[in-house]
Amino acid sequence: MNFRMIWRILSFILLVEAVFMLPAMLLCAFQKETVSAVSFLITIGIVLAAASVLWLLSRKAKKGFYSRDGLICVGLSWIVMSLFGALPFRISGVIPNYIDALFEIASGFSTTGASIINNVEALPKGMLLWRSMSHWLGGMGVLVFLLALVPISGRNDGYTMHLLRAESPGPDVGKLVPRMKQTATILYALYIGLTVLDFIFLVIGKMPVFDAVCIAVGTAGTGGFAVTNDSIASYSPYIQGVCTVFMFLFGVNFTCYYLLICGKIKNVLKDEELHWYLGIALVAIIAVTLNVRSIYDSWGETIRYSAFQVGTFMSSTGFATTDFDQWPTLSKAIIFSLMFIGASAGSTGGGFKVGRGLLVIKMIRRNVRQVLYPQKIQVVRLNGRVVDEGVLRNTNAYLCTYVIIILASFILISFDNFSTMTNLTAVVSCFNNMGPGLEGIGPTLNYSGYSLLSKLVLIFDMLAGRLEIFPILVLFSRSAWRRR
Amino acid sequence: MNFRMIWRILSFILLVEAVFMLPAMLLCAFQKETVSAVSFLITIGIVLAAASVLWLLSRKAKKGFYSRDGLICVGLSWIVMSLFGALPFRISGVIPNYIDALFEIASGFSTTGASIINNVEALPKGMLLWRSMSHWLGGMGVLVFLLALVPISGRNDGYTMHLLRAESPGPDVGKLVPRMKQTATILYALYIGLTVLDFIFLVIGKMPVFDAVCIAVGTAGTGGFAVTNDSIASYSPYIQGVCTVFMFLFGVNFTCYYLLICGKIKNVLKDEELHWYLGIALVAIIAVTLNVRSIYDSWGETIRYSAFQVGTFMSSTGFATTDFDQWPTLSKAIIFSLMFIGASAGSTGGGFKVGRGLLVIKMIRRNVRQVLYPQKIQVVRLNGRVVDEGVLRNTNAYLCTYVIIILASFILISFDNFSTMTNLTAVVSCFNNMGPGLEGIGPTLNYSGYSLLSKLVLIFDMLAGRLEIFPILVLFSRSAWRRR
Repeated sequence: MNFRMIWRILSFILLVEAVFMLPAMLLCAFQKETVSAVSFLITIGIVLAAASVLWLLSRKAKKGFYSRDGLICVGLSWIVMSLFGALPFRISGVIPNYIDALFEIASGFSTTGASIINNVEALPKGMLLWRSMSHWLGGMGVLVFLLALVPISGRNDGYTMHLLRAESPGPDVGKLVPRMKQTATILYALYIGLTVLDFIFLVIGKMPVFDAVCIAVGTAGTGGFAVTNDSIASYSPYIQGVCTVFMFLFGVNFTCYYLLICGKIKNVLKDEELHWYLGIALVAIIAVTLNVRSIYDSWGETIRYSAFQVGTFMSSTGFATTDFDQWPTLSKAIIFSLMFIGASAGSTGGGFKVGRGLLVIKMIRRNVRQVLYPQKIQVVRLNGRVVDEGVLRNTNAYLCTYVIIILASFILISFDNFSTMTNLTAVVSCFNNMGPGLEGIGPTLNYSGYSLLSKLVLIFDMLAGRLEIFPILVLFSRSAWRRR
Repeated sequence: MNFRMIWRILSFILLVEAVFMLPAMLLCAFQKETVSAVSFLITIGIVLAAASVLWLLSRKAKKGFYSRDGLICVGLSWIVMSLFGALPFRISGVIPNYIDALFEIASGFSTTGASIINNVEALPKGMLLWRSMSHWLGGMGVLVFLLALVPISGRNDGYTMHLLRAESPGPDVGKLVPRMKQTATILYALYIGLTVLDFIFLVIGKMPVFDAVCIAVGTAGTGGFAVTNDSIASYSPYIQGVCTVFMFLFGVNFTCYYLLICGKIKNVLKDEELHWYLGIALVAIIAVTLNVRSIYDSWGETIRYSAFQVGTFMSSTGFATTDFDQWPTLSKAIIFSLMFIGASAGSTGGGFKVGRGLLVIKMIRRNVRQVLYPQKIQVVRLNGRVVDEGVLRNTNAYLCTYVIIILASFILISFDNFSTMTNLTAVVSCFNNMGPGLEGIGPTLNYSGYSLLSKLVLIFDMLAGRLEIFPILVLFSRSAWRRR
């Protein structure tokens, strides 16, 4: 294990985190929220001190950096980032308990958007900004951000690839361009571009600038923290429409946007995952609309509500414009299933991912064919290309781990005597980086009632879900920590 | 596809079914339930006519019989058996709707035990006997029964193997002895022996002989149909204890019993799946006991109730002695998870199977090791032997299909506006051949409220679950029906 290199990267990560805390601190100072401003200042001091120590430890780092180093580095980075990111909430007393603060910021970085705060509107605006910024940083990944900017160790493309692979969602990280560093830069350029576009559309709809910043970065990361107690419900239909469109847009594989910019429209139109992503969304919107029509006044209103909610569940954002816990069972079953499916691979959204689900279905069909005709060698194709068996193996391993973690977490948090559906959707929602669930954690309620044990389990689920399990799982593997 | 041979086997299956209807018909006649007796007589006539037609179609069958023929034959057999098995209920008018009757008998053959009958005690005893016998026939498998008895096509061992493989639960059917036909005979001898033992213990506890027959065959097949409206609750603690022990015994891999008889006790004690099966059961009983202690009067009573309920869920039997839907959330979460895990491979129980779960966990560990040390070739071992990659691939495919079918069925039955938890547990319970679920289908309630569409979906789930998906799945594959 190349620990020195891992420390070096960690020190950079902390530096990035400190930089991202600055706007929140300045906003607090500007609004004369002295306690909050000082809390950020103290935190930044602690973070910089930790970064310096790590930097000193990282001297004389070796060159070799393998896939296991990448996984461990990513897993540690996100844990360390969350541990420090929770400090402003705790020091300022906005969230009196550290585990609660950790839950809130882990929910932010993992783009879950599950909250333990009962009255969001009472928080200092700087705190709200930090909460929302954590979505943006977590959405595309802090290591991807780092790789896009900083040449940490010369032009070592292998190590860039291992970090990018470990942090990015999806069964297979496609290289957009031959060099991984450029891929990271392109991804962030697209990400920033789309976020700014979202912001502009929101401001055009007369949304207050502060709200527009928070909602735009929250949508971009498919996070879900809002700045009002009723999420997006009290904004105008236009703003809700903009949010719906951008939630869907941020759930698309970013490779599609890159191809679009390069003029390769045909490739985008042929993308199988995109077909399924849009197809599932369309079917879900139609089914939910027909099912909830009687609750709302007009067809237009019904379509608006159902499209928004399907968008929020499919992209795993977590905003809400209506209390979907009051919907009929069919619609609840649909949104529950959408939580599992999630967004596209290579997007900022969570869940199992449409692309992975597609691979799973293709594998089943392959398996049936193989049983029927054992003498023929059968392959799985996606977008016309044969999918590597290693990718298929990883997809399978992912599904296995996914199911086991959900069941184990479900049992652990059931020590808290909430209803079975509350606990089940809490785990499914956190693990898929969604946010709200059904019954006791419906859109009008939150996670504050859970015990500290349950919160720790859910923090694990949120981080494991965002990093697609393996970077967190290897931290628990003895063989990862062996010297040789 | 060797259709002629499939027709020949189907005609034998129908013959077996007719023979198994005889005791029920005689009981009806003996009790002067003329309508029921005549219904059985008519059904037997129809079944024998169908068998004759199939026999005529099957003349000049070719020898070649491949794995796809085995799968299709098994899938068709169970569907045909259910279609005819439902007739006595319908013709006698005991169950006025044919789909309801089909639900009841498919639930019987698949050893689910989910019922749509509100007042079981009002049924003629012959009908109850037929219901319970279907559990026994379905438990070890009707084709295994056939293979144990009849030499259908000379000494073709390959075809015996393909049928046995397709019908027996578990990731890998171990050959007990080199010849598959003998394996089938040994399995049925053990099965009959254990059933008779169960019956004797029940009669010793002064259970009425009719009840003892029905409960013994229902336990043996891990079915769950009872003959009183409160399942097992009104019997004595001794009888409940006998049921608990035998439910656990029928959830053990029958290979263990064979090894035990052969004096290979060491191999049994070393069996990894057995360790996990007993370990999970023990942990679950302790956890549930501690969790529900306050509900019952004494520790003894609490242990009795929790052991019975854990036994019923782990073995997927479906009897009940208490309304577990009133238990605290933790216990409900545990029994919900036990439904997924299920019994051992090679037992009569349902669920995902402990052995398969074990393989899944070992595969995850292998995957982590492989990511950490890509240069080493990693294998998965069970009981010290390397597990074939084909078995691992099938286990993965099984899990994938399992998850997809559960989600799809959940959405389909949600058209009926029951609570989300009712619908979710209905699907999980039927697919894992359990029987009762939570909330609207708790142990004091039943499936009668579901629409016909939902019942058809659940019938599919029950049969697909019992046959471990693939024999049913290939029936939907176009390439299975192609001539060449």
